[in-house]
Amino acid sequence: MSPQQAYNELVGQMKEISLLGSTASLLAWDQRTYMPRQGAEFRSQQLALIAGMYHERFTSPKIGDLLSQVESTDLVKGDSVEAANVRELRHKYNKETKLPKELVEEIVRVTTLAETEWETARARSDFAMFAPWLEKVYDLTRQSAEAMGYEGEPYNALLDNYEPGAKVSDIEAIFTPLRKDLVELLGRIKNAPRRPDPGIVERNYPVELQKIFGEAVAGAMGYDFSAGRLDITTHPFCTGIGNGDTRITTRYNPKRLNDALFGIMHEAGHALYEMGLDKKNQFGLPAGDATSLGIHESQSRMWENQVGRSKAFWVYFLPQAKRIFRDALADVNLDAFYGAVNDVRPSYIRVEADEGTYNLHIMLRFELERALLNKELAAKDAAGEWRKRFKSYFGIEVDKDSNGILQDVHWSAGLVGYFPTYTLGNLFSAQFFAKAKADMPDLTKQFERGDFSGLLNWLRQNIHQHGGRYRANDLAQRVTGQTLSHKPLMDYLNAKYGEIYGI
Amino acid sequence: MSPQQAYNELVGQMKEISLLGSTASLLAWDQRTYMPRQGAEFRSQQLALIAGMYHERFTSPKIGDLLSQVESTDLVKGDSVEAANVRELRHKYNKETKLPKELVEEIVRVTTLAETEWETARARSDFAMFAPWLEKVYDLTRQSAEAMGYEGEPYNALLDNYEPGAKVSDIEAIFTPLRKDLVELLGRIKNAPRRPDPGIVERNYPVELQKIFGEAVAGAMGYDFSAGRLDITTHPFCTGIGNGDTRITTRYNPKRLNDALFGIMHEAGHALYEMGLDKKNQFGLPAGDATSLGIHESQSRMWENQVGRSKAFWVYFLPQAKRIFRDALADVNLDAFYGAVNDVRPSYIRVEADEGTYNLHIMLRFELERALLNKELAAKDAAGEWRKRFKSYFGIEVDKDSNGILQDVHWSAGLVGYFPTYTLGNLFSAQFFAKAKADMPDLTKQFERGDFSGLLNWLRQNIHQHGGRYRANDLAQRVTGQTLSHKPLMDYLNAKYGEIYGI
Repeated sequence: MSPQQAYNELVGQMKEISLLGSTASLLAWDQRTYMPRQGAEFRSQQLALIAGMYHERFTSPKIGDLLSQVESTDLVKGDSVEAANVRELRHKYNKETKLPKELVEEIVRVTTLAETEWETARARSDFAMFAPWLEKVYDLTRQSAEAMGYEGEPYNALLDNYEPGAKVSDIEAIFTPLRKDLVELLGRIKNAPRRPDPGIVERNYPVELQKIFGEAVAGAMGYDFSAGRLDITTHPFCTGIGNGDTRITTRYNPKRLNDALFGIMHEAGHALYEMGLDKKNQFGLPAGDATSLGIHESQSRMWENQVGRSKAFWVYFLPQAKRIFRDALADVNLDAFYGAVNDVRPSYIRVEADEGTYNLHIMLRFELERALLNKELAAKDAAGEWRKRFKSYFGIEVDKDSNGILQDVHWSAGLVGYFPTYTLGNLFSAQFFAKAKADMPDLTKQFERGDFSGLLNWLRQNIHQHGGRYRANDLAQRVTGQTLSHKPLMDYLNAKYGEIYGI
Repeated sequence: MSPQQAYNELVGQMKEISLLGSTASLLAWDQRTYMPRQGAEFRSQQLALIAGMYHERFTSPKIGDLLSQVESTDLVKGDSVEAANVRELRHKYNKETKLPKELVEEIVRVTTLAETEWETARARSDFAMFAPWLEKVYDLTRQSAEAMGYEGEPYNALLDNYEPGAKVSDIEAIFTPLRKDLVELLGRIKNAPRRPDPGIVERNYPVELQKIFGEAVAGAMGYDFSAGRLDITTHPFCTGIGNGDTRITTRYNPKRLNDALFGIMHEAGHALYEMGLDKKNQFGLPAGDATSLGIHESQSRMWENQVGRSKAFWVYFLPQAKRIFRDALADVNLDAFYGAVNDVRPSYIRVEADEGTYNLHIMLRFELERALLNKELAAKDAAGEWRKRFKSYFGIEVDKDSNGILQDVHWSAGLVGYFPTYTLGNLFSAQFFAKAKADMPDLTKQFERGDFSGLLNWLRQNIHQHGGRYRANDLAQRVTGQTLSHKPLMDYLNAKYGEIYGI
């Protein structure tokens, strides 16, 4: 077999394996949207089966052989798409072949049940009910890290699943100066000479009107509703099921505009990345998939924050919002509204946190999951530890565990090592957006007239079309000419809050 | 390996294969309910992949070996559950191993496209557009019949897929006297001294109220909404996805009460059968699955007709309906309403046909599909032949092909040999119901007070729990002490219409 033939065979295999994997995406979407309650146990069996089959096929010696036949040939010299596909498949293959199929299936089976238990525990704010599941999940996660192998600590093996190539030391190197600068900024905000009135966005916002407005905004961003849909779930998410089918979800709070609105923009931002990937030619291959969760999150956060919380966005959309939410917004002007959606204050819930405090929520989780994984903290003590650290980070007491450790779906779903990618997303997002603004000096003007196609095209061109061809840090370097730094994010936050808070 | 070990291994294999197959049920449900339009092409690839994998696994020599190791051992003597499982798996295995995987995948590919073409052709009432697809489907269906083998004519190979063991000659033996008696009954109804007013159920029935009433009725029947759900689709169906997850769909006509109401009762009847199967112990095995489509349909038709179109049912439910549909039913009494839901008249659309004419629709299709399969009729001439026979059966002219040959999804979906099971369902249903009434003399009284648990328990006990342990005719013999006959259905219809029409 020539290298080209072996590569073509590899592509065919990966397409079929990914097609199989894509059925799990629909099973998981359905589980969270429309599945009847009593179907949970059977669904966990379906998901475990598909995960096991996917694992078995992807780790078969045939894939290894095909990779070997292509590696070190001219086909994968330089930074061609083929080279990137082979490089990333090899990386994934070497990790996955170390995982026993039984462990893969067990993780899916347990986490599917754990997620249902978590939902109930969260609804009842009953951590004791969830603690045994947390312990099981961390046991299995630890086993998987041990099987895959790592340098330093087990966390590195897991982090790499979401952010290929990233290490705990990289995260710490960027979290440390970021924490320092954020704490300093939050101190200035606390003593600011003026404050916005967040009450404006905490009036009556009827759910059906929020849906109308949210869908209009998503449509304006470029989200195509004939290739996707918006549903309601406890924990909002975006899932790319396949070509022509990228779905988002949200949750509505009738007393608060922010949650669903910025949630929809966030998930639609993820969806635009999925929709912009080259699924036609590269489906099933790294070049047709997201390069990392940090980059994925940079897309969602950019639309949610750099766009959705910008003054220019509201120049265009506030008049529309006033026509839809006639009662709630009758007396509200642009500056007041802009201030209200940028109000900074310590709060319990990560996904509803402002841009100033958000990353502290991540740092807390990063610390806790490392401690749990390294067995420095027992699962049963995790809620207490959360409360303790939360108090020290935010200066307020957690009132109940559903506002504390039970708020996130991640750990119940087996997603350990995932949280840091949210902060990486914020950092990438600020760095990319600064470059986009430099490249398109009239971007603010475009937003003011409701035109977001300039930004979307820039993202398609610079980020989406490449998929996983470049790893996250290489992509940032390529697009912005700089390595990843906390400075663009701090510059952006200092400028915005400087204006709003007069600091 | 001992026979018991081989049997256990077979059970394990079948559970896994069926779990894989169950993912296709969800993919298909989603395709018809919530899938975004642009996802259709990708979905057809997912479905073809699962169908191919299912076929490959089920027809692997390993399954054949395991069956051989169990057959003719003491384990499968007599009429034990094990014996039934091995008997039916062998039957299915011998048929499926004769089908080349390429043909299985080709059928899925072509029918997925044909169904989309049919939808458009039906919307435009354009038979010429659909004719080439009809020809392709019948070509492939004929190939599959030839591959599987048959006695007599190819139709037997297909019929057996839906009604194991049934033959064309059995169908004809029962259709002939049934046709004669029905034509005689319809003649008497045509000249009846009094007629009900069907206008009562053709008033304004707001969709949201129909939903409330329909769900209340399904709940009263015993349909468990925590183990299922009701959604809207163009073509209503019931799908058993797995243990704890059996979903139904309907479509609402705001100008007619019957369609959604009896449609919901019909699909909920199917669902009660699925929910009553022993999926806990027999999942993936014949004893945990429906024994035939005729028996499946007997459950849906019994709830729709023997229950839903009975006077006793409306003694309880008309007062509820009057409280929900305040305007439409204000002036309606029990006799008038009972008459209206039992109005008999020739009509174009099978799924909306009354109990008196329904089976003639089936006989027409049975004749046509045999002629198409035996090449006595060319696909391009099928619409004309339909019109001709329809005129002779019903005495009215088909006004357009969307009210004629284009009305049903079945042939485009590759379902040839399926239609007769609808009439078998009506026959089984009447025969079972007569026995249930004989076993429970106060059944009518139970219905009058809204209690349907007696009937459901009788069905669970006599039919549901056995799954495919007994073939349809054996089950009928076992439950009713009689072979299947057209007489119970005719007795039931003669009594009902005798009262309503005064004949």
